[in-house]
Amino acid sequence: MSDPSKVIKFAGFRWQGVAVTAYKERSDLFKDVTRQTLLGERDGEGEGEGDLNFITRYFEIAPGGYSTLERHEHPHAVVILRGRGTVVLGGEEHDIAPFDCVRVAPDTVHQFRATGEEPLGFLCIVDRVRDRPVPVRGGVPPFV
Amino acid sequence: MSDPSKVIKFAGFRWQGVAVTAYKERSDLFKDVTRQTLLGERDGEGEGEGDLNFITRYFEIAPGGYSTLERHEHPHAVVILRGRGTVVLGGEEHDIAPFDCVRVAPDTVHQFRATGEEPLGFLCIVDRVRDRPVPVRGGVPPFV
Repeated sequence: MSDPSKVIKFAGFRWQGVAVTAYKERSDLFKDVTRQTLLGERDGEGEGEGDLNFITRYFEIAPGGYSTLERHEHPHAVVILRGRGTVVLGGEEHDIAPFDCVRVAPDTVHQFRATGEEPLGFLCIVDRVRDRPVPVRGGVPPFV
Repeated sequence: MSDPSKVIKFAGFRWQGVAVTAYKERSDLFKDVTRQTLLGERDGEGEGEGDLNFITRYFEIAPGGYSTLERHEHPHAVVILRGRGTVVLGGEEHDIAPFDCVRVAPDTVHQFRATGEEPLGFLCIVDRVRDRPVPVRGGVPPFV
Protein backbone atom coordinates (compact mmCIF):
# COMPACT_ATOMS: atom_id res chain seq x y z
CA MET A 1 0.00 0.00 0.00
CA SER A 2 1.39 3.35 -1.03
CA ASP A 3 1.22 6.48 1.09
CA PRO A 4 -0.52 9.45 -0.51
CA SER A 5 1.21 12.47 -1.94
CA LYS A 6 2.09 15.15 0.57
CA VAL A 7 3.87 18.43 1.22
CA ILE A 8 6.11 18.63 4.29
CA LYS A 9 6.52 22.23 5.35
CA PHE A 10 9.92 23.55 6.34
CA ALA A 11 10.33 25.42 9.64
CA GLY A 12 13.90 26.53 10.35
CA PHE A 13 15.70 23.29 9.43
CA ARG A 14 13.03 21.32 11.14
CA TRP A 15 10.11 19.91 9.17
CA GLN A 16 6.48 19.60 10.16
CA GLY A 17 5.81 16.15 11.58
CA VAL A 18 9.41 14.95 11.13
CA ALA A 19 11.20 13.77 14.26
CA VAL A 20 14.77 14.79 15.07
CA THR A 21 16.59 11.57 15.92
CA ALA A 22 20.00 10.33 16.94
CA TYR A 23 22.51 10.00 14.13
CA LYS A 24 23.88 6.60 15.19
CA GLU A 25 24.17 4.38 18.23
CA ARG A 26 27.94 4.55 18.68
CA SER A 27 28.13 8.08 20.01
CA ASP A 28 31.88 7.86 20.72
CA LEU A 29 32.64 7.93 16.98
CA PHE A 30 30.90 11.18 16.04
CA LYS A 31 30.11 14.54 17.59
CA ASP A 32 26.93 16.63 17.59
CA VAL A 33 25.02 15.15 14.67
CA THR A 34 21.24 14.84 14.28
CA ARG A 35 19.16 13.08 11.64
CA GLN A 36 15.73 13.80 10.16
CA THR A 37 14.22 11.42 7.64
CA LEU A 38 12.27 13.61 5.24
CA LEU A 39 11.00 11.27 2.55
CA GLY A 40 10.89 7.54 1.98
CA GLU A 41 10.66 6.20 5.50
CA ARG A 42 8.44 3.21 5.97
CA ASP A 43 5.75 3.76 8.53
CA GLY A 44 5.91 0.31 10.13
CA GLU A 45 6.68 -3.08 8.65
CA GLY A 46 5.87 -3.28 4.97
CA GLU A 47 3.72 -0.19 5.13
CA GLY A 48 4.07 3.38 4.04
CA GLU A 49 6.39 4.83 1.46
CA GLY A 50 7.60 1.47 0.23
CA ASP A 51 7.40 2.57 -3.37
CA LEU A 52 10.24 5.04 -2.76
CA ASN A 53 13.34 2.91 -3.24
CA PHE A 54 15.56 5.62 -1.79
CA ILE A 55 15.45 7.60 1.43
CA THR A 56 16.02 11.34 1.69
CA ARG A 57 17.57 12.23 5.06
CA TYR A 58 18.68 15.59 6.46
CA PHE A 59 21.73 15.57 8.71
CA GLU A 60 22.88 18.49 10.77
CA ILE A 61 26.27 18.81 12.42
CA ALA A 62 26.79 21.50 15.06
CA PRO A 63 29.86 23.76 14.77
CA GLY A 64 32.95 21.72 15.61
CA GLY A 65 31.10 18.45 15.17
CA TYR A 66 31.71 15.62 12.72
CA SER A 67 30.10 12.46 11.40
CA THR A 68 31.61 9.00 11.83
CA LEU A 69 34.65 8.26 9.67
CA GLU A 70 33.30 5.25 7.80
CA ARG A 71 32.95 3.25 4.64
CA HIS A 72 30.22 1.10 3.06
CA GLU A 73 29.31 -0.42 -0.29
CA HIS A 74 26.31 1.79 -1.02
CA PRO A 75 26.97 5.22 -2.55
CA HIS A 76 25.76 8.53 -1.12
CA ALA A 77 24.23 11.46 -2.99
CA VAL A 78 24.66 14.59 -0.86
CA VAL A 79 23.46 18.18 -1.31
CA ILE A 80 24.60 20.77 1.23
CA LEU A 81 21.79 23.04 2.47
CA ARG A 82 23.46 25.25 5.12
CA GLY A 83 26.74 26.08 6.80
CA ARG A 84 30.33 25.47 5.92
CA GLY A 85 32.51 22.43 6.35
CA THR A 86 34.76 19.85 4.83
CA VAL A 87 34.23 16.36 3.55
CA VAL A 88 36.85 13.64 3.66
CA LEU A 89 36.66 11.49 0.52
CA GLY A 90 39.25 8.77 0.54
CA GLY A 91 42.57 10.49 1.21
CA GLU A 92 41.33 13.93 0.17
CA GLU A 93 39.57 16.72 2.02
CA HIS A 94 37.31 19.19 0.21
CA ASP A 95 35.60 22.40 1.33
CA ILE A 96 31.83 22.32 1.12
CA ALA A 97 29.25 25.12 1.13
CA PRO A 98 25.51 25.46 0.45
CA PHE A 99 24.21 23.68 -2.62
CA ASP A 100 27.49 21.94 -3.37
CA CYS A 101 26.85 18.31 -4.28
CA VAL A 102 28.91 15.34 -3.14
CA ARG A 103 28.99 11.86 -4.58
CA VAL A 104 30.47 9.32 -2.16
CA ALA A 105 31.47 6.31 -4.25
CA PRO A 106 31.18 2.75 -2.93
CA ASP A 107 33.73 1.71 -0.33
CA THR A 108 35.15 5.23 0.02
CA VAL A 109 36.18 6.33 3.51
CA HIS A 110 34.31 9.55 4.25
CA GLN A 111 33.49 12.01 7.00
CA PHE A 112 31.63 15.33 7.17
CA ARG A 113 32.96 18.06 9.46
CA ALA A 114 31.31 21.36 10.43
CA THR A 115 34.00 24.03 10.38
CA GLY A 116 31.92 27.21 10.25
CA GLU A 117 30.00 29.19 12.86
CA GLU A 118 26.61 27.81 11.91
CA PRO A 119 25.57 24.17 11.69
CA LEU A 120 26.46 22.19 8.59
CA GLY A 121 23.22 20.78 7.20
CA PHE A 122 22.88 18.50 4.20
CA LEU A 123 20.58 16.11 2.42
CA CYS A 124 21.96 12.59 2.07
CA ILE A 125 20.05 10.24 -0.21
CA VAL A 126 20.63 6.49 -0.06
CA ASP A 127 19.08 3.27 -1.30
CA ARG A 128 16.45 1.89 1.04
CA VAL A 129 18.17 -1.50 0.94
CA ARG A 130 21.84 -1.01 1.71
CA ASP A 131 24.76 -2.40 3.68
CA ARG A 132 25.67 -1.17 7.14
CA PRO A 133 28.46 1.43 7.47
CA VAL A 134 31.73 0.25 8.95
CA PRO A 135 33.58 2.74 11.18
CA VAL A 136 37.19 3.33 10.20
CA ARG A 137 39.96 3.97 12.70
CA GLY A 138 43.27 5.32 11.52
CA GLY A 139 44.21 5.95 7.92
CA VAL A 140 42.49 9.30 7.68
CA PRO A 141 43.20 11.15 10.96
CA PRO A 142 40.35 12.03 13.30
CA PHE A 143 38.96 15.53 13.46
CA VAL A 144 41.58 18.07 14.54
CA MET B 1 32.85 0.33 -13.26
CA SER B 2 32.07 2.94 -10.65
CA ASP B 3 32.89 6.63 -10.97
CA PRO B 4 35.06 8.06 -8.19
CA SER B 5 33.83 10.25 -5.37
CA LYS B 6 33.55 13.93 -6.20
CA VAL B 7 32.42 17.36 -5.06
CA ILE B 8 30.40 19.43 -7.54
CA LYS B 9 30.69 23.10 -6.66
CA PHE B 10 27.63 25.33 -6.71
CA ALA B 11 27.72 28.60 -8.66
CA GLY B 12 24.45 30.53 -8.58
CA PHE B 13 22.06 27.65 -9.27
CA ARG B 14 24.40 26.33 -11.87
CA TRP B 15 26.92 23.63 -10.96
CA GLN B 16 30.48 23.20 -12.13
CA GLY B 17 30.60 20.85 -15.10
CA VAL B 18 26.84 20.25 -15.13
CA ALA B 19 25.00 21.09 -18.36
CA VAL B 20 21.71 23.00 -18.39
CA THR B 21 19.41 20.99 -20.63
CA ALA B 22 15.88 21.04 -21.96
CA TYR B 23 13.23 19.82 -19.56
CA LYS B 24 11.34 17.68 -22.09
CA GLU B 25 10.80 17.32 -25.82
CA ARG B 26 7.13 18.36 -25.95
CA SER B 27 7.63 22.06 -25.36
CA ASP B 28 3.94 22.89 -25.91
CA LEU B 29 3.02 21.25 -22.59
CA PHE B 30 5.25 23.24 -20.25
CA LYS B 31 6.70 26.74 -19.98
CA ASP B 32 10.20 27.96 -19.11
CA VAL B 33 11.68 24.92 -17.37
CA THR B 34 15.32 23.78 -17.37
CA ARG B 35 16.93 20.62 -16.05
CA GLN B 36 20.37 19.90 -14.56
CA THR B 37 21.31 16.37 -13.62
CA LEU B 38 23.50 16.71 -10.53
CA LEU B 39 24.22 13.16 -9.40
CA GLY B 40 23.63 9.69 -10.75
CA GLU B 41 23.79 10.22 -14.48
CA ARG B 42 25.46 7.46 -16.45
CA ASP B 43 28.31 8.68 -18.54
CA GLY B 44 27.61 6.50 -21.58
CA GLU B 45 26.18 3.04 -21.89
CA GLY B 46 26.79 0.93 -18.81
CA GLU B 47 29.47 3.28 -17.57
CA GLY B 48 29.69 5.90 -14.90
CA GLU B 49 27.55 6.31 -11.83
CA GLY B 50 25.71 3.07 -12.34
CA ASP B 51 25.94 2.20 -8.66
CA LEU B 52 23.62 5.11 -7.88
CA ASN B 53 20.16 3.62 -8.38
CA PHE B 54 18.52 7.02 -8.20
CA ILE B 55 19.13 10.28 -10.03
CA THR B 56 19.24 13.70 -8.39
CA ARG B 57 18.04 16.38 -10.79
CA TYR B 58 17.60 20.14 -10.31
CA PHE B 59 14.72 21.77 -12.15
CA GLU B 60 14.21 25.49 -12.44
CA ILE B 61 10.99 27.16 -13.57
CA ALA B 62 11.08 30.84 -14.53
CA PRO B 63 8.45 33.17 -13.01
CA GLY B 64 5.09 32.41 -14.60
CA GLY B 65 6.32 29.05 -15.91
CA TYR B 66 5.09 25.55 -15.15
CA SER B 67 6.04 21.93 -15.63
CA THR B 68 3.98 19.45 -17.62
CA LEU B 69 0.76 18.30 -15.96
CA GLU B 70 1.46 14.57 -15.89
CA ARG B 71 1.30 11.24 -14.13
CA HIS B 72 3.54 8.14 -13.93
CA GLU B 73 4.00 5.04 -11.82
CA HIS B 74 7.31 6.04 -10.24
CA PRO B 75 7.21 8.33 -7.18
CA HIS B 76 9.05 11.65 -6.87
CA ALA B 77 10.98 12.96 -3.88
CA VAL B 78 11.21 16.75 -4.16
CA VAL B 79 13.01 19.38 -2.05
CA ILE B 80 12.47 23.05 -2.95
CA LEU B 81 15.68 25.10 -3.04
CA ARG B 82 14.57 28.56 -4.19
CA GLY B 83 11.57 30.68 -5.09
CA ARG B 84 7.87 30.36 -4.46
CA GLY B 85 5.21 28.39 -6.23
CA THR B 86 2.48 25.84 -6.07
CA VAL B 87 2.32 22.14 -6.69
CA VAL B 88 -0.73 20.33 -7.99
CA LEU B 89 -1.07 16.92 -6.32
CA GLY B 90 -4.11 15.08 -7.57
CA GLY B 91 -7.02 17.45 -7.16
CA GLU B 92 -5.24 19.66 -4.62
CA GLU B 93 -2.94 22.63 -4.93
CA HIS B 94 -0.34 23.46 -2.24
CA ASP B 95 1.94 26.43 -1.72
CA ILE B 96 5.64 25.59 -1.75
CA ALA B 97 8.66 27.54 -0.52
CA PRO B 98 12.36 26.82 0.06
CA PHE B 99 13.18 23.55 1.82
CA ASP B 100 9.62 22.29 1.76
CA CYS B 101 9.54 18.63 0.74
CA VAL B 102 7.05 17.03 -1.61
CA ARG B 103 6.28 13.37 -2.07
CA VAL B 104 4.50 12.66 -5.34
CA ALA B 105 2.89 9.23 -4.96
CA PRO B 106 2.62 6.80 -7.87
CA ASP B 107 0.05 7.63 -10.53
CA THR B 108 -0.72 11.07 -9.04
CA VAL B 109 -1.37 13.89 -11.48
CA HIS B 110 1.07 16.68 -10.64
CA GLN B 111 2.46 19.98 -11.86
CA PHE B 112 4.86 22.57 -10.45
CA ARG B 113 4.15 26.26 -11.04
CA ALA B 114 6.41 29.26 -10.36
CA THR B 115 4.24 31.98 -8.89
CA GLY B 116 6.83 34.27 -7.31
CA GLU B 117 9.20 36.89 -8.68
CA GLU B 118 12.25 34.64 -8.69
CA PRO B 119 12.61 31.25 -10.34
CA LEU B 120 11.23 28.20 -8.57
CA GLY B 121 14.11 25.74 -8.20
CA PHE B 122 13.90 22.26 -6.74
CA LEU B 123 15.64 18.93 -6.46
CA CYS B 124 13.66 16.00 -7.82
CA ILE B 125 14.99 12.53 -7.09
CA VAL B 126 13.76 9.51 -9.03
CA ASP B 127 14.68 5.90 -9.62
CA ARG B 128 17.13 5.41 -12.45
CA VAL B 129 14.84 2.76 -13.95
CA ARG B 130 11.32 4.20 -14.21
CA ASP B 131 8.31 4.50 -16.46
CA ARG B 132 7.78 7.42 -18.82
CA PRO B 133 5.54 10.30 -17.71
CA VAL B 134 2.18 10.59 -19.43
CA PRO B 135 0.92 14.13 -20.04
CA VAL B 136 -2.57 14.79 -18.74
CA ARG B 137 -5.06 17.07 -20.46
CA GLY B 138 -8.12 18.26 -18.62
CA GLY B 139 -9.10 17.19 -15.15
CA VAL B 140 -6.85 19.65 -13.38
CA PRO B 141 -7.07 22.94 -15.31
CA PRO B 142 -3.99 24.34 -17.01
CA PHE B 143 -2.01 27.16 -15.46
CA VAL B 144 -4.09 30.33 -15.07
